[in-house]
Amino acid sequence: MKYLEERIRKEGIILPGNVLKVGHFVNQQIDTELLREMAKELHRLYRDEGVTKILTIEASGIALAAAVALEMGLPMVFAKKNASSNVSGDVYTSRVTSYTHHKTYDVIVPKEYLSPDDRVLIVDDFLAMGNALLGLIAIVKAAGASVAGCGIIIEKGFQEGGNILRSAGVRVDSLAIVDTMNAETGEITFRENP
Amino acid sequence: MKYLEERIRKEGIILPGNVLKVGHFVNQQIDTELLREMAKELHRLYRDEGVTKILTIEASGIALAAAVALEMGLPMVFAKKNASSNVSGDVYTSRVTSYTHHKTYDVIVPKEYLSPDDRVLIVDDFLAMGNALLGLIAIVKAAGASVAGCGIIIEKGFQEGGNILRSAGVRVDSLAIVDTMNAETGEITFRENP
Repeated sequence: MKYLEERIRKEGIILPGNVLKVGHFVNQQIDTELLREMAKELHRLYRDEGVTKILTIEASGIALAAAVALEMGLPMVFAKKNASSNVSGDVYTSRVTSYTHHKTYDVIVPKEYLSPDDRVLIVDDFLAMGNALLGLIAIVKAAGASVAGCGIIIEKGFQEGGNILRSAGVRVDSLAIVDTMNAETGEITFRENP
Repeated sequence: MKYLEERIRKEGIILPGNVLKVGHFVNQQIDTELLREMAKELHRLYRDEGVTKILTIEASGIALAAAVALEMGLPMVFAKKNASSNVSGDVYTSRVTSYTHHKTYDVIVPKEYLSPDDRVLIVDDFLAMGNALLGLIAIVKAAGASVAGCGIIIEKGFQEGGNILRSAGVRVDSLAIVDTMNAETGEITFRENP
């Protein structure tokens, strides 16, 4: 999405350590006109895929999931993160390590929210190493459901997640793919979308 | 909202300890048609209040905040919860104790997301003791901004939060107010809305 790339170029803040701050319009304070456009684009990309449910992980994927679910007229579910390893009850869980936050946690979805009939569009704000998405995919598979694809706002193309997922045959649609970013010059280059 | 009350009566699960489970259609798995209706109703209630921003707290308020913000054409912000007391940087914080989860945490909003010009509609899924809302109101006031009101999905009318807020002069609009619920019989009574 050209408009998203322009906003990132103009308003994104690059910090040392490959951190891209877009919290003031993408994921903590959210520009809802941009959110609506992103939801429309993911709807366009997945309208013929037989999607039955939108799945994300708390907290910064939820606004996008709600917008996409509203746009597509589908229910949404968000997975919870739990630092404790004591997860009980009728839930699917998957262990995820976040390199950004240097934490390991369990991703948890109650079993009643996913069924073998579901075809799931997973959405999230960022794709870097891909661990959160791999955890969500494992949960969808554990439920016997299928993954239609992953819809992402910003993919860090210089990190491995996108390659790992696409090599495994997972469809990934990132609305902007950052190929390089330079904390000193503030320069960002985007991958041309096919 | 009569439709919301009917859904709660039909699908809500009452557990001992005054717990009302509506996770499968209100706050973890979300029925987006219901979400849209709730957002439209809060829009109707606050359309003439000069609201500039929607504020909520992670995680289960975010979907409602996104839907209301999309409906009203306004930006939204969610406050983060942090169990650690080491909060640094340019942020507003407020200490909150959750009686439901037996935890104390800091509610955090970066200062750049609230300004004295803002008139804020706070939304959340549940109102029980009111502590999360009081924390958000404290943050809005610390920013020099004003609170237009609090839009809530389900208020537990038999707990103190609603009274505390309304006695303090805060406008509170709850789409359903549960006055009594009985874990043994499954019976729920709702307060008549004015």
